Amino acid sequence: MIELTSNKCSLPHKVKDAIKSVVGQGQVNLHEPRFDGNEKAYLMECLESTFVSSVGKYVDEFEKSLCEFTGSKYAIAVVNGTSALHIALILSGVEENDEVLIPSLSFVATANAVSYCGAVPHFIDVDEETLGISNNSLEQYLSEVSEQIDGKCINKKTGRVIRAIVPMHTFGNSVAIEGILKTANDHKINLVEDAAESLGSFYKGVHTGTFGLLGALSFNGNKIITTGGGGAILTNNKTLATKAKHITTTAKLKHQWNFKHDQVAYNYRMPNINAALGCAQLEDLPSILRNKKLLFKKYKDKFNTIENINLFQENEGTSSNYWLQTLVLDKSHAHNLDDILKLTNDSGYMTRPAWNLLHTLQPYKDCPRASLTVSKSLKKRILNIPSSTYNFK
Amino acid sequence: MIELTSNKCSLPHKVKDAIKSVVGQGQVNLHEPRFDGNEKAYLMECLESTFVSSVGKYVDEFEKSLCEFTGSKYAIAVVNGTSALHIALILSGVEENDEVLIPSLSFVATANAVSYCGAVPHFIDVDEETLGISNNSLEQYLSEVSEQIDGKCINKKTGRVIRAIVPMHTFGNSVAIEGILKTANDHKINLVEDAAESLGSFYKGVHTGTFGLLGALSFNGNKIITTGGGGAILTNNKTLATKAKHITTTAKLKHQWNFKHDQVAYNYRMPNINAALGCAQLEDLPSILRNKKLLFKKYKDKFNTIENINLFQENEGTSSNYWLQTLVLDKSHAHNLDDILKLTNDSGYMTRPAWNLLHTLQPYKDCPRASLTVSKSLKKRILNIPSSTYNFK
Repeated sequence: MIELTSNKCSLPHKVKDAIKSVVGQGQVNLHEPRFDGNEKAYLMECLESTFVSSVGKYVDEFEKSLCEFTGSKYAIAVVNGTSALHIALILSGVEENDEVLIPSLSFVATANAVSYCGAVPHFIDVDEETLGISNNSLEQYLSEVSEQIDGKCINKKTGRVIRAIVPMHTFGNSVAIEGILKTANDHKINLVEDAAESLGSFYKGVHTGTFGLLGALSFNGNKIITTGGGGAILTNNKTLATKAKHITTTAKLKHQWNFKHDQVAYNYRMPNINAALGCAQLEDLPSILRNKKLLFKKYKDKFNTIENINLFQENEGTSSNYWLQTLVLDKSHAHNLDDILKLTNDSGYMTRPAWNLLHTLQPYKDCPRASLTVSKSLKKRILNIPSSTYNFK
Repeated sequence: MIELTSNKCSLPHKVKDAIKSVVGQGQVNLHEPRFDGNEKAYLMECLESTFVSSVGKYVDEFEKSLCEFTGSKYAIAVVNGTSALHIALILSGVEENDEVLIPSLSFVATANAVSYCGAVPHFIDVDEETLGISNNSLEQYLSEVSEQIDGKCINKKTGRVIRAIVPMHTFGNSVAIEGILKTANDHKINLVEDAAESLGSFYKGVHTGTFGLLGALSFNGNKIITTGGGGAILTNNKTLATKAKHITTTAKLKHQWNFKHDQVAYNYRMPNINAALGCAQLEDLPSILRNKKLLFKKYKDKFNTIENINLFQENEGTSSNYWLQTLVLDKSHAHNLDDILKLTNDSGYMTRPAWNLLHTLQPYKDCPRASLTVSKSLKKRILNIPSSTYNFK
């Protein structure tokens, strides 16, 4: 291995040089936000209004703009993507001891949100083509392990209700959501989309996160746009939207001065000052998306000439936000992953592998799971490379 | 009642006139933040650094400044006061089906945080002198209803462990924390302080929130200082502080690129942009506290001359932040509360009663409780009046 990385013609060196030729010399982060629109102006205006907290015009405007951009009928802004997913799961009917199908190839928040409901994550496999839930494996797996009783999907082994499924649009790439939605419907499982990474990504022209009963967005600092910390619940269902607003704002009933709360609820409302940042960021999103595509093309030109490694590309019929540019090693070259990570990071180019598979983490190691062959293989072959757009303004 | 409020010499009119004479004509809110320090500068600096999210210097600085101000050894900044209390309860050992003693006279977050742990709120009474937990009633009640088995406090009626007690420093007024701490220790109950309202309040020169195993602060928009939305966990225990940081940041183990998480955890970290606001606000806190005391004195001069109603005053040996100025009606005049609320609010002076008692709320109506005589009486007699300091710069 030492020989390989010291060899300038080795795969790690080729990858490092390709990255360097696109993003230039120096310390380069994986993803940095850019603030060259109305961010300052809106933050100042927000301070001057004194409405920096849970009430204020920016929260309403941000929600309205999210609806316009995504085509979702309703959007409810919250403190982060994890809380958005938590509430989306509650509102999709997930209860204590239910099971929720999630990909093992995802950020830990997907599993944690299930845990907050007292429910059990049940891990399923992904597709090499989308990096998200594989509908073929899903269909086959459900027909083997589940049965329908009284209109519910029951895990024959555990006896628990499989209440919901949470496809995640990995690194901004849309899963084959139509097929998954049909399978979920056929099996009486509610669909909640983890669209934390896919603001600006579309499947057949329809925005990700708007296919299921509810969807969850994230605006963490590393996401395609940021509110500092933040997230949003998307839904086309008015009743669910009303409930989402209620349960994220301590379930307080409207009154001029009384404090009456009618259920156990959460303090998850996005503060106005974070929404002010979000409003400016959303205005800039079309430009960010154009830059992300441009960066993809620049990388594409370089990686086209390198064998045994491929730059992940949006599938036909989908439009990726290219949030994180992704390389996938050929199976025969998976052993190069650690060397590539080491050489690139040591050279000042921040790269990272996929998350540790969720079913391997201590808190989730005993949860039910399907065969996870593709997830295990991809985990050894994926890495994300510097994906900021600030170099290409 | 109609005659009473139409009479210019009625108690509601006297209260309204007293408020007006202090805060002036016009629409006056209950509490507004003021931003006349480094708020703009720090927000701009934060934007320019691009570190607006979960990593950045302001979070560290804010935590350090909180430690300096409160004298707490450790402070962990989080997204809001509710999440601070949630984590403090988990770290104090609260588990599913435990009971947690809390005042019925509190904001709903105190009870909700208990629920998030799967535990059961157990309501206890407050003192007229402090508006917080009454140590006398507490001691007597515990000797009646609990017994110690294997070093645990057991509720003899329900058989559940009474794991923790959460005194809340109401409207910024310190409870008689020394006595409560002794009672808690005697009964093997962990003390967690809900200091959401009492940043800047001291008991015998020691800051509230630092007596218990852990304490929770809030920096919501209506609090004495604000970060938009935010909170902090205080503790003097290094192990608990380390755990608090870990569990509020998805329990990720440190590694240059790997994503390994070793427990079910939370995404509760305060974003850097909110902490930037907090740093500026903390610098201004001494001045805010001086202004709050000045406002108290101005109100005191006016309400001294009005019979049957009293302005709540800090107890000897304590220093109140006077976050919310509080009036308490004599028992004989409790029937005036609604008229006072109506007249003041209709006249543009925002006033509000105490929260609906927690044991009366739908989700908590079947929870165990002590006799709540004082809480019930105070609920009918308390109101908060405009408490901003911006008029007195």
